[in-house]
Amino acid sequence: MEIKYMKEAIRYGRRSLLSDDVPVGCVIVKNNKIIGYGYNKKEELHSPLAHAEIMAINMASKNLNSYHLEGCDIYVTLEPCLMCVGAILNARIKNLYFGARNKRFGAVISHQKIEKLITNHRISYESGILERECANLISEFFSDLRKRSK
Amino acid sequence: MEIKYMKEAIRYGRRSLLSDDVPVGCVIVKNNKIIGYGYNKKEELHSPLAHAEIMAINMASKNLNSYHLEGCDIYVTLEPCLMCVGAILNARIKNLYFGARNKRFGAVISHQKIEKLITNHRISYESGILERECANLISEFFSDLRKRSK
Repeated sequence: MEIKYMKEAIRYGRRSLLSDDVPVGCVIVKNNKIIGYGYNKKEELHSPLAHAEIMAINMASKNLNSYHLEGCDIYVTLEPCLMCVGAILNARIKNLYFGARNKRFGAVISHQKIEKLITNHRISYESGILERECANLISEFFSDLRKRSK
Repeated sequence: MEIKYMKEAIRYGRRSLLSDDVPVGCVIVKNNKIIGYGYNKKEELHSPLAHAEIMAINMASKNLNSYHLEGCDIYVTLEPCLMCVGAILNARIKNLYFGARNKRFGAVISHQKIEKLITNHRISYESGILERECANLISEFFSDLRKRSK
């Protein structure tokens, strides 16, 4: 785990703000190189699939020309949802690092426990990486949204 | 539930064979009209995301220009995996109909029970729609694959 990659994920997460999307960012790293990145574009693309992790996995699998992202680590600012955990497992990513918890939809340690979801692929994870910065990214967005809606 | 839509899903599933992909097909229906379809293209696109359901949800959300596919039904020949169940729940699809069970990776009734995965969205499902035809589609593919590899 390297903090610098979570900083990059946060940096990409800020791009979600351009389309008024909930800011979540993600990078995928292989051999000390970022081979995929993504940020939440659900509003921008009107798509339930356009989560940061899905965008990053899409880019990484194109770059590697492979549906298995073996030896890859994923860094994401928010605990992944069920769809994204499923995609991370399907892609056979090695290590998952995330920042803030997602108490309602998180499928790693919150709403679901990833240990119970795993089929044939083993994954390691670590939570709480730059947790405060990752959580602030989202809480500031919602605080601003509430102010604007008044 | 209408059998004709599962027949369409099977028809699309056969298209996976063109790229030597495991044949799985899917359609999404709203107001008696197919607004999205997909078939497994994992090998063709070298993507862990290219499951039939994801392709169909992508098309349907583009057609509706919405990340919520409310009032939509999804028909898929094989029990969805965790990623696809997550996507179906994120998209707020109303009814899920599938054909054959996926004993290793199915996240509706097999490896996972969908009732335990649900957060805030309710979904109804029915399994075993044209089960034999849906299962044959896949078993014939693997039987052919084994013959060819000898």
